[in-house]
Amino acid sequence: MNVPLTVVIVGGVAGGMSAATRLRRLDENAHIIVVERGDYVSYANCGLPYYVGGVIEDRDSLLLQTPEGLAARFRLDVRTGHEVVAIDRDAQTVTIRPTGTSQTAEQHYDRLILAGGATSTEPRTGGIPSFSLRTVDDVDHITRVLGSLPTAPSAVVIGGGFIGVEAVENLVRRGVSVTVVQRGPHILSPLDVELAALVQERVAAAGVEIRTSTTVTGVEDDRLQLSDGTSIRADVVIDATGVHPDTSLARAAGLRIGESGGIWVDAQQRTSDPLIYAVGDGTEKTDAVGGGGSLIAMAGLANRHGRAAADSIAGTATPAAPALGTAIVGLFGQTIASVGWSESRLVAAGRAHRVVHTHPASHATYYPDAETMHMKLLVDPGTDAILGAQIVGGEGVDKRIDVIATAMSAGLTASALSRLELAYAPQYGSAKDAINQLGYVAENVATGVTETVQWHEVDLAQELGELIVDVRREDEYDAGHIPGALNIPLDELRDRLFELPDTPFIVHCQVGQRGHTAARLLTQHGFSVRNLDGGYLTWRAGTSLTHPHPRIQRSTV
Amino acid sequence: MNVPLTVVIVGGVAGGMSAATRLRRLDENAHIIVVERGDYVSYANCGLPYYVGGVIEDRDSLLLQTPEGLAARFRLDVRTGHEVVAIDRDAQTVTIRPTGTSQTAEQHYDRLILAGGATSTEPRTGGIPSFSLRTVDDVDHITRVLGSLPTAPSAVVIGGGFIGVEAVENLVRRGVSVTVVQRGPHILSPLDVELAALVQERVAAAGVEIRTSTTVTGVEDDRLQLSDGTSIRADVVIDATGVHPDTSLARAAGLRIGESGGIWVDAQQRTSDPLIYAVGDGTEKTDAVGGGGSLIAMAGLANRHGRAAADSIAGTATPAAPALGTAIVGLFGQTIASVGWSESRLVAAGRAHRVVHTHPASHATYYPDAETMHMKLLVDPGTDAILGAQIVGGEGVDKRIDVIATAMSAGLTASALSRLELAYAPQYGSAKDAINQLGYVAENVATGVTETVQWHEVDLAQELGELIVDVRREDEYDAGHIPGALNIPLDELRDRLFELPDTPFIVHCQVGQRGHTAARLLTQHGFSVRNLDGGYLTWRAGTSLTHPHPRIQRSTV
Repeated sequence: MNVPLTVVIVGGVAGGMSAATRLRRLDENAHIIVVERGDYVSYANCGLPYYVGGVIEDRDSLLLQTPEGLAARFRLDVRTGHEVVAIDRDAQTVTIRPTGTSQTAEQHYDRLILAGGATSTEPRTGGIPSFSLRTVDDVDHITRVLGSLPTAPSAVVIGGGFIGVEAVENLVRRGVSVTVVQRGPHILSPLDVELAALVQERVAAAGVEIRTSTTVTGVEDDRLQLSDGTSIRADVVIDATGVHPDTSLARAAGLRIGESGGIWVDAQQRTSDPLIYAVGDGTEKTDAVGGGGSLIAMAGLANRHGRAAADSIAGTATPAAPALGTAIVGLFGQTIASVGWSESRLVAAGRAHRVVHTHPASHATYYPDAETMHMKLLVDPGTDAILGAQIVGGEGVDKRIDVIATAMSAGLTASALSRLELAYAPQYGSAKDAINQLGYVAENVATGVTETVQWHEVDLAQELGELIVDVRREDEYDAGHIPGALNIPLDELRDRLFELPDTPFIVHCQVGQRGHTAARLLTQHGFSVRNLDGGYLTWRAGTSLTHPHPRIQRSTV
Repeated sequence: MNVPLTVVIVGGVAGGMSAATRLRRLDENAHIIVVERGDYVSYANCGLPYYVGGVIEDRDSLLLQTPEGLAARFRLDVRTGHEVVAIDRDAQTVTIRPTGTSQTAEQHYDRLILAGGATSTEPRTGGIPSFSLRTVDDVDHITRVLGSLPTAPSAVVIGGGFIGVEAVENLVRRGVSVTVVQRGPHILSPLDVELAALVQERVAAAGVEIRTSTTVTGVEDDRLQLSDGTSIRADVVIDATGVHPDTSLARAAGLRIGESGGIWVDAQQRTSDPLIYAVGDGTEKTDAVGGGGSLIAMAGLANRHGRAAADSIAGTATPAAPALGTAIVGLFGQTIASVGWSESRLVAAGRAHRVVHTHPASHATYYPDAETMHMKLLVDPGTDAILGAQIVGGEGVDKRIDVIATAMSAGLTASALSRLELAYAPQYGSAKDAINQLGYVAENVATGVTETVQWHEVDLAQELGELIVDVRREDEYDAGHIPGALNIPLDELRDRLFELPDTPFIVHCQVGQRGHTAARLLTQHGFSVRNLDGGYLTWRAGTSLTHPHPRIQRSTV
């Protein structure tokens, strides 16, 4: 038998713990040492906001494993309250010390796995208590402070990303008055503005104030100063400005840092030193859409890569899969999900793309409680490859994003979504599922059966003299329409062709479907016409943050 | 401009109507005639059972389109209450008559689409009212008869397939006492027995009597005689024995009938006469798993193929996709779904396969309301291709079957399921999603990391002297265990190796996960050991219909 390997793992949550337990199953003899700075290992970090909000009531349920349990089952040598402060690659040793002390000790390693995650830069908030939301200690502090505040306390959440909005929702659950301060033009930057607008409307309806294109510049007494010159009172501040890969150990050891700022790794999670692996939020991922290095902080990827590192150490090669960045969040009854790249990211990268918007029902509309989903698909016009998708809705959003993520992983085209054979009964979907419909629209665009125009192109088209023809019913038109649009209901269209111009114009309906029928009809009658993609609903959402509209209408499918 | 095409479509629901509306969008000039035997077109046939049960309250919501609406929007010439009684292929005419009359008229066609669906053979039930559940007329009759019965009426549902169990559930909703008579050994024949057992337990708990391996042989007064010599009283009978493709028109016209008994079509839905298309339940599908012709009666396929026929007529080729037979049903709070082939079908076809069972939670267990899912995956041992899957559970079953169906469509291997990047937040899934876990187990088997044994192989192994080692906690063992099993909890295993034999034996836990860890540990200590796939839970369910067990335990994950 070989001499047992000594494997040191830095970080005992998600990726680190996946590596440790998989490695034990593959190698009963290895000496596996897990060094964790905090007091807890393998805790439910994605559950922390929900403990703050009281959805998860039992604090113990957050602690998935204990060092004692891991020793009994997996013979892991777990050292909580310890940190690795240096790596000596030549000597193959790490320097370990109890957190906050100076008593160091050297530990030999045959293989080292860096799973230290990410750090956030504490905002300067003067005397206002400020927390991030990454560890069990964080939530213990937050709940203690919230418990000590007077009734109706105020909180400011800095950063409206996925973690930020989870913090917002859970603070509201506790009766806290919340303001979000977001550097960008809207919250949830993986979404494009016309989808984010639908979320912001819901967040605002829950009583949360959203301050976009704004940063915190300072603090005075109990008020945060903002870049727009205003200030907000805050009893507590949650810092969710996003995380930075914790690369200090890796940099000090001279390991290669990727273009994204995360630790560079190969397809087996090996760093530039083949005896040292890295996984998790501190590590660079290969981006499935862009091909380059990318920072994607997701528990699922951390777990998968931890397992892959263990496989590699044990001598089993695992094929690497690039990262899609699939993400989801629940927020005030909405479910919001995205995968791949957004339109704004594609635009910024100068990458050609096609856009499809749909607003299908979550299941057959004749069966009770169907909910509208707002879907957006980004497609490569050259290859018909799916570049990204975003969905805002309720029931069934998680299903559809997972189907699209699976299709992207497998390299299916956007048109192929139309041919997926998804499970149908009226309480679960539609005979033509929302995913099939998305594929049909994408295929109609790809094959030239229909030509579409995007919501943000309407203004310019109107300036250039293009007429907008709204083919919805009169009552729908009366409830709100694009300024200057002519209303001819679809079912009257064939009789009113004489009202239409012989120059190019745009048709639209509520969601795009009747508009498509109208466009096909009119094209065959010799008109030059484009259909407004996603219909009035997408136009309305997209322009709501810039135009002085009343509240966005809810669609009834 | 060309002379307008005349296209006659026989059948105005699902596939027929998809063909008609798509064709209109592609060809504004065609004369499109839809001939429908019944009084209604384009109704929600999958919603009919739920109208009987009162879940869908408004009868009008079942009627998706009217002939008038279809004329206004799509200029369709819809003739309800008419039937096509003959096809003259040489003359390119069909003979049409008002249903139930003898006044025939000839109608020319350039293209003909047969979308007549399927028929069921009425069981002979003497004086007991008997209905199938396929048309609006059927449900009108059923609700009228049910309304006229005294309190606590009795119904017999013949056939426990997907439609049959929907009828069962909805009759129970109306307070009817229901017995299901099923020819096969268990209801829901697309499931294998160990999954079907979990469903039957739930159905029985809802007060429904299930009579398996039984047929109706006759009727005497208000009692149905059964093949087991017993009889059951019935106020009403629902015939859900399955459907037969309605091929009478096609056969009379000399069109080719496929090996499955459905109308043969090519990849563009053309019959053996290239001017005649066929779609829907009367038409043969190409089976994705077996490659041959197959009868798969699904609304989704009917719609897709209707659209494909229109595309072909309009001159756009659509790539054909073979049919997976993805199916789903909700039943007394359970969701039951399947795709591809079952183990029993693979066995019957003599096709090599591997089996994986898992029992994951629908979402992170630390977040409230996670439900156990029971999953089964069938894999080709030569190629690692996915041959089929079955899932019984609640929340999240529809999502997982759609992900697997998408993976099958795309040709992903079972092991590749482990690398799918699915959306994770604690209320929607797990960092290692149920799908990823299924992929991990499949990969462990494929790569030889673990060797498994199936629930139905335990008896023989025990007869051959293999010991069963149950590595669950003592309290789990005490609550029910495999007779003769030795209990050594996993966390004590390394200290009790001396109790284990040097001959091959089997380990197991509740669901398979701790058993896997035990098997890995023991293998590396030199023991010859296999893990019981799916653990005690799968063994318990699989043997529950044959062994004299008490009720199947619910797992707590």
